[in-house]
Amino acid sequence: MPKIRVTKRFHFEMAHALYQYDGVCRNIHGHSYKLEVTLKGEPLNRPGHPKDGMVMDFGELKNMVKENVVSRFDHVMMVNRLVPEEQVAMLKKISERIFVVDFQPTTENIATFIAEILKQQLPEEIELFSIRLYETATSFAEWFAADNAE
Amino acid sequence: MPKIRVTKRFHFEMAHALYQYDGVCRNIHGHSYKLEVTLKGEPLNRPGHPKDGMVMDFGELKNMVKENVVSRFDHVMMVNRLVPEEQVAMLKKISERIFVVDFQPTTENIATFIAEILKQQLPEEIELFSIRLYETATSFAEWFAADNAE
Amino acid sequence: MPKIRVTKRFHFEMAHALYQYDGVCRNIHGHSYKLEVTLKGEPLNRPGHPKDGMVMDFGELKNMVKENVVSRFDHVMMVNRLVPEEQVAMLKKISERIFVVDFQPTTENIATFIAEILKQQLPEEIELFSIRLYETATSFAEWFAADNAE
Repeated sequence: MPKIRVTKRFHFEMAHALYQYDGVCRNIHGHSYKLEVTLKGEPLNRPGHPKDGMVMDFGELKNMVKENVVSRFDHVMMVNRLVPEEQVAMLKKISERIFVVDFQPTTENIATFIAEILKQQLPEEIELFSIRLYETATSFAEWFAADNAE
Repeated sequence: MPKIRVTKRFHFEMAHALYQYDGVCRNIHGHSYKLEVTLKGEPLNRPGHPKDGMVMDFGELKNMVKENVVSRFDHVMMVNRLVPEEQVAMLKKISERIFVVDFQPTTENIATFIAEILKQQLPEEIELFSIRLYETATSFAEWFAADNAE
Repeated sequence: MPKIRVTKRFHFEMAHALYQYDGVCRNIHGHSYKLEVTLKGEPLNRPGHPKDGMVMDFGELKNMVKENVVSRFDHVMMVNRLVPEEQVAMLKKISERIFVVDFQPTTENIATFIAEILKQQLPEEIELFSIRLYETATSFAEWFAADNAE
């Protein structure tokens, strides 16, 4: 049976700031992130089965990513845990959706974080092949399983 | 000499239905498919030759795919052979262009089918590297030769 | 640490002609080229450092490509060295920006040329992973380091 890669695109609006960055990105700002999630597997070969010919039903892939990533990331402000507590407390007074993370929220690190989340959601026979995360229309970072084999 | 990949994009409008699928896609509907065909080879290194510097002339690649895929797929309804004969007969009364195939016409299976068609059209020194088929603006499937080495 | 690929997109307007090509492209014409430069490396893991979490600062990547490629290619006419000298001399009377190159200026060859230029600009720990060069909205060529390992 052939191996096929399937990809679904998503988007979310998120604010971030790069802690101690030496440029304008140290200020709170936002991006219209675009996300592509690519899986690899064998399309089901069971003629007559509802999911015949699918690696994963695009609808299921969509729900999995919406539930585990998009709904958690959309319209939040992602904050590096190194930001002083009093600043975070102040942000929480202004915004209901502050997401404190253990890393600098660069596109590179967010892509890796999304990969870690989604890997746990997939059945064994389907591989999380890659994650592409656009920060802007002209800049993106990619995590590939093949680059990060343990 | 360097190895280079060259890609040409196409599109076609096609109707399909997913036989016995457990969702709205079991009904006849259509997509504006977008297709990317990627070849890999060495650009010709013959200074002064009409095709110098090309893996394959983009014009030839375009003609090859138009003739073997786009012209056969555009404005057809692709139907799984499992669909009962009387239904197919009825469809043929309504539409001149019914394409009965031996598989469930998911994006995954259509991408594989296109790869099988195009592999036979290429000279030995040019590899069909990959096929990307968009079913919608946010969903696509990819066949890669490297994933399907025999 | 994870390995991540980062990509930045650029564009430039360039004229070219394909010397002795057997079609309309032998005439001087232009394209709105789009260029994607992909690097691979480990995001810096130094919490509190200005570049923490980055393979290469997108701003630095942008400057590197603008300086070494875009500024040299934008609004030039790229001419194969095989074009007779008197024709080149005449072109230089008409245009200030004639770029004579040692190859047929196909998308394939220009992508390879850009790769050669950019490889020399990167620090050792960052790999030039790939170059994608669109000649038109539906045609592109790609150079990959993995396809051209020495």
